Amino acid sequence: MASCTSLLLLFFAFLVTMPTSKTMAAFFPGASYYQSLTTTQSKAKNPEIPYKAHYFPQVLDHFTFQPISSKIFYQKYLINSQYWHRGAPIFVYTGNEGDIDWFAANTGFLLDIAPKFQALLVFIEHRFYGESLPFGENSYDSAETLGYLNSQQALADFAVLIRSLKHNLSSDASPVVVFGGSYGGMLAAWFRLKYPHIAIGALASSAPILQFDDITPWSSFYDAVSQDYKEASLNCYEVIKNSWAELEALSAQKEGLIELSRTFRTCKNLHSLDSVWDWLWSAFVYTAMVNYPTEANFMKPLPAYPVKEMCKIIDGFPPGASKISRVFAAASLYYNYSQGEKCFQLENAPDAHGLHGWNWQACTEMVMPMTCSKESMFPPSEFDYKEFADRCMKRYGVMPRPHWITTEFGGKRIDQVLKRSGGNIIFSNGMQDPWSRGSVLKTISSSIIALVTKKGAHHVDFRSATKDDPDWLKEQRRQEVDIIKRWIHDYYADLKQIIDNA
Amino acid sequence: MASCTSLLLLFFAFLVTMPTSKTMAAFFPGASYYQSLTTTQSKAKNPEIPYKAHYFPQVLDHFTFQPISSKIFYQKYLINSQYWHRGAPIFVYTGNEGDIDWFAANTGFLLDIAPKFQALLVFIEHRFYGESLPFGENSYDSAETLGYLNSQQALADFAVLIRSLKHNLSSDASPVVVFGGSYGGMLAAWFRLKYPHIAIGALASSAPILQFDDITPWSSFYDAVSQDYKEASLNCYEVIKNSWAELEALSAQKEGLIELSRTFRTCKNLHSLDSVWDWLWSAFVYTAMVNYPTEANFMKPLPAYPVKEMCKIIDGFPPGASKISRVFAAASLYYNYSQGEKCFQLENAPDAHGLHGWNWQACTEMVMPMTCSKESMFPPSEFDYKEFADRCMKRYGVMPRPHWITTEFGGKRIDQVLKRSGGNIIFSNGMQDPWSRGSVLKTISSSIIALVTKKGAHHVDFRSATKDDPDWLKEQRRQEVDIIKRWIHDYYADLKQIIDNA
Repeated sequence: MASCTSLLLLFFAFLVTMPTSKTMAAFFPGASYYQSLTTTQSKAKNPEIPYKAHYFPQVLDHFTFQPISSKIFYQKYLINSQYWHRGAPIFVYTGNEGDIDWFAANTGFLLDIAPKFQALLVFIEHRFYGESLPFGENSYDSAETLGYLNSQQALADFAVLIRSLKHNLSSDASPVVVFGGSYGGMLAAWFRLKYPHIAIGALASSAPILQFDDITPWSSFYDAVSQDYKEASLNCYEVIKNSWAELEALSAQKEGLIELSRTFRTCKNLHSLDSVWDWLWSAFVYTAMVNYPTEANFMKPLPAYPVKEMCKIIDGFPPGASKISRVFAAASLYYNYSQGEKCFQLENAPDAHGLHGWNWQACTEMVMPMTCSKESMFPPSEFDYKEFADRCMKRYGVMPRPHWITTEFGGKRIDQVLKRSGGNIIFSNGMQDPWSRGSVLKTISSSIIALVTKKGAHHVDFRSATKDDPDWLKEQRRQEVDIIKRWIHDYYADLKQIIDNA
Repeated sequence: MASCTSLLLLFFAFLVTMPTSKTMAAFFPGASYYQSLTTTQSKAKNPEIPYKAHYFPQVLDHFTFQPISSKIFYQKYLINSQYWHRGAPIFVYTGNEGDIDWFAANTGFLLDIAPKFQALLVFIEHRFYGESLPFGENSYDSAETLGYLNSQQALADFAVLIRSLKHNLSSDASPVVVFGGSYGGMLAAWFRLKYPHIAIGALASSAPILQFDDITPWSSFYDAVSQDYKEASLNCYEVIKNSWAELEALSAQKEGLIELSRTFRTCKNLHSLDSVWDWLWSAFVYTAMVNYPTEANFMKPLPAYPVKEMCKIIDGFPPGASKISRVFAAASLYYNYSQGEKCFQLENAPDAHGLHGWNWQACTEMVMPMTCSKESMFPPSEFDYKEFADRCMKRYGVMPRPHWITTEFGGKRIDQVLKRSGGNIIFSNGMQDPWSRGSVLKTISSSIIALVTKKGAHHVDFRSATKDDPDWLKEQRRQEVDIIKRWIHDYYADLKQIIDNA
């Protein structure tokens, strides 16, 4: 049966038996992107995106000098130069685990602010995702090839590409600011920390850089999801919390799965309860992540404040209605807001391109332990590291390095560390987003600043401005722009001083 | 004929035909260590060093997750815990390109200050040097093995080892300060920049982190050597400057090499002028580097201010004496101060253990272009990158990455960058040391501080205090101790605040 832990493990079983991204997506920032990519997004659907694609000959392995290291692969990046002139700022989106076109389409904030800064916009695709496959279609074959997929190589890719690009544009002195959301936000923050000579600042939106080791309580993610629903309606939270047992009881009955298939309007009869469990789980978790204040289509088309809408559905049933029928109706909001689905494909859902990539990262460096506490609306569960590691070993032939991220990038007592080093980072978060709990929520110094909104969700600040945006969101973006302006102002002032003194 | 450039290239020829470290040593901080290791130092001669050796199971490749990456090798490190208690500071020497025992023996400064800080002393050997050979005696066989030898892997080694050590000592909250000289100083500075969550500060002595790309003028190193001699005596400088032509003319004569063999008291007759050239060259360069204010035995036993002594010898000849006899006599001070040599082995000098290691690093990432200007006391020469790269390719089957160090670690406009990031680094330098020109000589911020002495030489501050130390050296060390005290004070104050607020 799925649980906070076993879902994660189940997800590996899925890789072998039932390719789907639903289950894992709840666990990893942006894993949900895959689902969107296959279901609602494609490059063909965004022909109007004002970017031109380029391909950079990138070094495969920056950190050894073996014969294979000099192998080159072509890394995709997108450029918009319509507002830029030589010497003006360069804004770089540090791509995360998916197709870069999709990130560009969903980061309208950069296009919105580019004219103000006369900025060049660059979106760099992360190695092993989208079209940036070092070994082509064999990229995911084994640890021999996947070994080169990790965050340190990705950061070095960004460094090499940005340096080369500036050189080719004859604009070496242009200040570079990096932007990223979710895992891309982690990369943006880490890039500023590790490559301060290349990026003068970073805006890291919804970047859970503290979701490792024991820095953030393991139950915080699902507690935060639950909190969203509890805030919307206590009854809603309790219906969901108690629905799991009702589902389990029903499935154990004779003909139980047939009844469930009917209730959940599945396209084909169900073989097990697991897929129902995951289908609901994903709907609740994703909806919490994208609990946006306006109608939006990030993962799926959804109304404004979709958690509240889900709870309205649950609470709106007549007394005596089953919990199962209520949670199905709530989840249908997520899967079928646009009313186009005649039935739901709970098992063998379409595979998502590039899923293997994040699986690999989760099995090597991106170990984010999670549990469900008794207070959450999910069944309580622990994190069994050994079982997790065994599955990774079995799947890929490598053991995870659960302490590597905090060794390489830090995180423990981050205030104390970054107070005396580092600078020019914004950590933006919305407390509706369960990932916020693993991010930096308190300002650390005069130049390492946390911008937190109570009603914000997963990198909502990166979305294009709309006429319906609430004031707190406008204010958050305004603050971001003001801080970035100051970084750039300081940079040019420093540069002028150097030139004047030369 | 040897020159600033061709010496470097010649050095590769040496690898094939005449193993010696003399020539290259002039080009790389600490390459001279090898020579010392084989000629004047050995572990047996330092039985009294108060350190205990340990061996840490280290990951071969931190930056890929391939099956081979999980290979473990045993990394040597030395510990002195006589002044330490749990929670007190840990001082780590970030080992450079040689046997760690030798660095420990020549970094008495740490032992001198350990009681004051109740500090644990840890000297970590750099991978691929000393006993820390990942592939045993096959470590230098080819690029397949040597590929794992580079500065980024070395820094990650330090991070992993320090974290593990603190954990095993149940002293996770101990502040760590890193120390390093020469290439070790580069590593210490870079470690603080890349791993601020592991080291609260770094003392980087004689660390030429700006000797890359075009940051530092390529002629500065040999100009600085020449300056040392010119300051000691203009005549001395001119004699050396003009001796090369005299040597060339003599060697071109019939019986010229026989006469040179006699003049240079070689143990065997010379086959070419090259070895004479290199022998002199090394003597002048090394003596400039170790132009210490007291008698010392770093590379060779030498008197206080040996450059002045050399020039006294050159100037002391009667008028009309040949330049060749003068420079021979001067170089003899370097090679034979203790008067033990009956003849000099200019060709086929004993091979130095571990030399291949630095050759590899110089051929991959540590590309430090150098030239000799017309003003230097060496024959003018340019840096021919193509020839250099071709030789590396021929020797190792890999191409250098000449811009990699500045991409990974920065260096250009370092003031501007580190002013807005980073903190707690001391760059200490003595202007007698030609490597000082490639280091940070100006204070950047309130916590990135340059300590420069006019009369200091290659990491003289790291040597044990002696009764003859001049005041400026005592003052430099006093400032270092004061600054480190402040870092540690701040660290504990920050920690207390966190605990109080918890």
